[in-house]
Amino acid sequence: MPANDLAVVILAAGKGTRLKSGVAKVLHRAGGRTLVEHVLAACAPLKSRKTIAVVGHQADQVTTVVAPLDAESVLQQPQHGTGHAMQVARRALGSAKLAIVLPGDAPLIRTETLRAMLAAHRTANAAATILSAVVSDPAGYGRILRKSETSVQAIVEESQLTDEQRDLNEINSSIYCFTLEKLWPALAQVKPHNKHRELYLTDAIAALTAKNEAVLAHVAADPREALGCNTRADLAEVDRIFRERKRADLMNDGVSIQLPETVLIDQDVTAGEDTVLEPCVQLLGKTKIGQRCTIRTGSVLSDMILGDDVLVEPHCVAVESRLDNNAIIGPFARLRPGTHLKEGARAGNFVEMKKSVIGEGTKVPHLTYLGDAHVGPKTNIGAGTITCNYDGFAKHPTTIGRGVFIGSDTTLVAPVRIGDGAYIAAGSTITENVPPEGLGIARGRQVNKPRWAARKRRELASAEHSAKRARPRTKSKAKKKKSRRR
Amino acid sequence: MPANDLAVVILAAGKGTRLKSGVAKVLHRAGGRTLVEHVLAACAPLKSRKTIAVVGHQADQVTTVVAPLDAESVLQQPQHGTGHAMQVARRALGSAKLAIVLPGDAPLIRTETLRAMLAAHRTANAAATILSAVVSDPAGYGRILRKSETSVQAIVEESQLTDEQRDLNEINSSIYCFTLEKLWPALAQVKPHNKHRELYLTDAIAALTAKNEAVLAHVAADPREALGCNTRADLAEVDRIFRERKRADLMNDGVSIQLPETVLIDQDVTAGEDTVLEPCVQLLGKTKIGQRCTIRTGSVLSDMILGDDVLVEPHCVAVESRLDNNAIIGPFARLRPGTHLKEGARAGNFVEMKKSVIGEGTKVPHLTYLGDAHVGPKTNIGAGTITCNYDGFAKHPTTIGRGVFIGSDTTLVAPVRIGDGAYIAAGSTITENVPPEGLGIARGRQVNKPRWAARKRRELASAEHSAKRARPRTKSKAKKKKSRRR
Amino acid sequence: MPANDLAVVILAAGKGTRLKSGVAKVLHRAGGRTLVEHVLAACAPLKSRKTIAVVGHQADQVTTVVAPLDAESVLQQPQHGTGHAMQVARRALGSAKLAIVLPGDAPLIRTETLRAMLAAHRTANAAATILSAVVSDPAGYGRILRKSETSVQAIVEESQLTDEQRDLNEINSSIYCFTLEKLWPALAQVKPHNKHRELYLTDAIAALTAKNEAVLAHVAADPREALGCNTRADLAEVDRIFRERKRADLMNDGVSIQLPETVLIDQDVTAGEDTVLEPCVQLLGKTKIGQRCTIRTGSVLSDMILGDDVLVEPHCVAVESRLDNNAIIGPFARLRPGTHLKEGARAGNFVEMKKSVIGEGTKVPHLTYLGDAHVGPKTNIGAGTITCNYDGFAKHPTTIGRGVFIGSDTTLVAPVRIGDGAYIAAGSTITENVPPEGLGIARGRQVNKPRWAARKRRELASAEHSAKRARPRTKSKAKKKKSRRR
Repeated sequence: MPANDLAVVILAAGKGTRLKSGVAKVLHRAGGRTLVEHVLAACAPLKSRKTIAVVGHQADQVTTVVAPLDAESVLQQPQHGTGHAMQVARRALGSAKLAIVLPGDAPLIRTETLRAMLAAHRTANAAATILSAVVSDPAGYGRILRKSETSVQAIVEESQLTDEQRDLNEINSSIYCFTLEKLWPALAQVKPHNKHRELYLTDAIAALTAKNEAVLAHVAADPREALGCNTRADLAEVDRIFRERKRADLMNDGVSIQLPETVLIDQDVTAGEDTVLEPCVQLLGKTKIGQRCTIRTGSVLSDMILGDDVLVEPHCVAVESRLDNNAIIGPFARLRPGTHLKEGARAGNFVEMKKSVIGEGTKVPHLTYLGDAHVGPKTNIGAGTITCNYDGFAKHPTTIGRGVFIGSDTTLVAPVRIGDGAYIAAGSTITENVPPEGLGIARGRQVNKPRWAARKRRELASAEHSAKRARPRTKSKAKKKKSRRR
Repeated sequence: MPANDLAVVILAAGKGTRLKSGVAKVLHRAGGRTLVEHVLAACAPLKSRKTIAVVGHQADQVTTVVAPLDAESVLQQPQHGTGHAMQVARRALGSAKLAIVLPGDAPLIRTETLRAMLAAHRTANAAATILSAVVSDPAGYGRILRKSETSVQAIVEESQLTDEQRDLNEINSSIYCFTLEKLWPALAQVKPHNKHRELYLTDAIAALTAKNEAVLAHVAADPREALGCNTRADLAEVDRIFRERKRADLMNDGVSIQLPETVLIDQDVTAGEDTVLEPCVQLLGKTKIGQRCTIRTGSVLSDMILGDDVLVEPHCVAVESRLDNNAIIGPFARLRPGTHLKEGARAGNFVEMKKSVIGEGTKVPHLTYLGDAHVGPKTNIGAGTITCNYDGFAKHPTTIGRGVFIGSDTTLVAPVRIGDGAYIAAGSTITENVPPEGLGIARGRQVNKPRWAARKRRELASAEHSAKRARPRTKSKAKKKKSRRR
Repeated sequence: MPANDLAVVILAAGKGTRLKSGVAKVLHRAGGRTLVEHVLAACAPLKSRKTIAVVGHQADQVTTVVAPLDAESVLQQPQHGTGHAMQVARRALGSAKLAIVLPGDAPLIRTETLRAMLAAHRTANAAATILSAVVSDPAGYGRILRKSETSVQAIVEESQLTDEQRDLNEINSSIYCFTLEKLWPALAQVKPHNKHRELYLTDAIAALTAKNEAVLAHVAADPREALGCNTRADLAEVDRIFRERKRADLMNDGVSIQLPETVLIDQDVTAGEDTVLEPCVQLLGKTKIGQRCTIRTGSVLSDMILGDDVLVEPHCVAVESRLDNNAIIGPFARLRPGTHLKEGARAGNFVEMKKSVIGEGTKVPHLTYLGDAHVGPKTNIGAGTITCNYDGFAKHPTTIGRGVFIGSDTTLVAPVRIGDGAYIAAGSTITENVPPEGLGIARGRQVNKPRWAARKRRELASAEHSAKRARPRTKSKAKKKKSRRR
């Protein structure tokens, strides 16, 4: 059966009062994406003729998120309930015959479940189908009261439950499928029943059952698919579920993860066989990791590309950069966007790189900043090397050749070029190019002043002694001392 | 009813043998405080006429902790049991008629529960009321044997249980309320029943029931309130419960927490709406965080004050400092006490600051130490800048103006002053003031020696060749190589 | 009874297809060791006459691991099942009468359990004894079908289960004891029953029961002892169990651990009373920690030796080094092998040390690299100090005396020696020895150029103005700006 009689409507207008937030409910994040992006991702494979997002709170921000995912925004202003939201979406629904309606904060819903609900709806030629879930703790949810094995008598709200209904454990997920030519008249006949004049889809369902229209309940395979995000605790729980699923996927692909509950991985990350993730690692964005890599504890990789056999030592922070096979970084390396370590290159502790290319086998072991630098292969960069790529007015490049030795504490004032095989003496500030195989040196000559320190100490001691005699009562320093233990 | 007939007695003399510790039991910590501080905090709202801490092991250290919380210490030396502890406290109790008695290692007890126990005790005009708890695993605890729905027949110790009593799951929390004029005679008639001549409150209760005095058991609402801390595992569990409660409080306030089980927050911390805490964060002491801040993974903030929209990148360690709105620090920033970043200021990677003020919008992006420095707004501090605030004898201040450009690898020998709009050339050691709009430069001039490196390599190669001929058998370096993988 | 009629056979030839790995199954790690090392450790106290490892996949690598643990490798190539593995091992078994056979991927097996199984086997004079386990979820395992309380009728594979057998919850652990003179004829009469011509030990057991030989099942005390490692999730679970046991051991020894589930400790680590481990710490290898130490969050210690009262601040990474009493390192300190901080010495933030000795009370507070250095007591090393221990050709030592003051941003070009009580001026590059009590200074003299910065800014502004007129349409920089929030 062609799906082009189908539309999807995502209810994304709500504020989410219990989240206590300045951000619209559906824009909160779990598993590395906004809630509404998860819902859109689950609906996309249905290939409906149209996806409509009913927006309200922070309408512009929500539209900005959903528009690139091919959802048309329709403004519901003010928000008078889910039934009203459907009325607002009516014109945009055009000639669609069926609509799947979902709250924008149900991020765990899966495509398979929507497909099964839709198939059940079509097969029974139903007016409405409710996605239900059987849960161990139904408190707080509307319950499904069935009149037969397949069909629904009513959705009973928590506050309306009789004592015996309180044990019903089949709940309403607030995800529905409607045959639209049945929905509109039912909605039209519902009276707004509170002072806010709100109109609910559950009332439309009551109207349909009153008319003896076929209303089904389809049970979700996994009750967690019905989870909404009303509180920060809900958000944390949903996030936990996404993270757990993702870790399980990577483990199935041959990745080892230590203390998995402490590791946070975004949906789009990939990693190859025999890669090991230590505790407290974060892999974010579209990070791609090869085989046999080790990512040690506390490291955070965002949108990184790693080859095979790469070692990331503890506590590295790296973004939008590339590490070729056998590269080693860290501990405490920080790679900013546009950095590329070629095969076997190393960036060690307290090293920052930005928009730089580091040649094969080149070592940058410690306490260094390389920005806008191009370094050839087999070069050694001493501790304390700094590229002065910014002169307060503009950025300039530094070029270092192959097989160069940059002595420690070298300052390279860009633009500057160090030729192949050249040598820079430690402590130099290099402002002019150094030729290949040459030595560049730029530092003061050493002078020793014998007995200077002993004399200085005597002077200071006698000055302090005089001062003390002048100030008869000096404050003790003792009270400045504090325990170093918390 | 006025509470001034009430005293609180906290039994804080114990050693806690199973903790295997040189520290008295009640001084162990959970949830960021010592155990006895938690107990005192739960008792404070009762506004009793007096709070007495019976101290013994490490009496001085315990007194130092409880004294500022208005508890009077009474020394029990040697320790002959809980009954003996009450006798020791008798004089300090003065004219109090009722006493609530608590072990100092029951940190989860809540004020509401103590109030309810007290109300039950008063209403029934009881001689003693035991706070009991109904637990799933009663093994190891004394059990409550009731003679009626409200009154107690006996507390049966684990070792005295008959087979049928073993299933009793109401346990003694060791928290009591006593009518003192009933307690003293009961205690007096108890015989010390072991070779240590110890006297227990449970024996006094047995004496009271034997005399047909009214002894009640009041069940704690939450059985965890009865949890004592006898082992390190108990301490970890109690700590976990405090941390969980605190995280739940912050989530209710509108804070998002990722992988919450990895995040450790002290009791007094506050954070505003839409602030996000990433995994493995620690917020300690009296840290106050504004709205829409992000605290990224591994960061540790102690007694910090953050405005709104502050970003703390991964792995920052910051203590007793202040970050104004839109400030950004890290990754790998370390702020020591007395630092203040004004609006929009930045401290980047491998940057340490101490007792320094950083002006609005000023950037300190990398590899820098600023101590005792005052930096104006819109200034740029290059990589590798170091304030030499200590000359081996005393500390001195550095003052940097507005709109200054400090070139990379600059050493500022304090005391020194850099005027507004000045410029320091990279690689300089600045020992004298630089005027506003001026340039300060202090470095060696560069000399290039062509072909030096090539010649040096040839020399060394030939020297090594001669050396090898002289030492016919040199050890292989291969065995020094070790696998870099654990 | 002497054990020298006993041999141990470890089946270590498998690939572990579901692990998706290039590494042989038994070489995967959990609890800080390979799986096969755990199995060998459990068998060692049995003092069998011989331990045989049947190897196949990555035979050389497995042999390299097991040989130092006194196991003889026997090659099974190709691998035709567990029965075939025993036939391959037959010659190596020599005159042993009994064999305990274990899969190399059952790391949780305990010596006590093997001893009990062996005793049961001997007492009953059995032909074979199966170690079984009673589990809540037996799916996927072969089940034990008993004919009496002690003896076994058959092992029924999952695929052969009748509907009523599906509820059997006693499973085969694949750990066995065999009387070898019974095993060989049973194996000989088994027909390889699939196209791979594989021969299984379970078939041999079926042959033994068919002959009415005594086959026992001995139930493991802890069902987790039967856990194999077929998937990465299994590996993570087994690792979790080892880590939990180790943490419990340390807590019993008087160590406090915060958020214990986030802390990873290897088997051989020890720590003294009142030592505190914060969340997300790793203690690896043979690390030994004294009393009253605090290891703060994110720190990773491998093969370290710590005295008493040592403080490791957050995010330190330290390997094969020694910290004496009252030493303090970090935050963000990195100690490479061969470093020794003597009593009360300090290594602060962004400090790296390698093969260096730091004297009593000496401070190295920040941004420093010391390699191949020997520093006396009571010395102060300024920020930005770097030992140039490598000149591009060889490594050289640096020696710094007692009570020395090294000014900030000092470069020490090794080999070099700084005498006791000497003073180095900030910003110096020291290439020659400095005598005791002397001053070494080597830097450029400062020159100030008034109004230079103002003039430079005017020039640049006018140059940019001309450039803009020449290039009428320049691209906006706006699109380069990206949100700094994830």
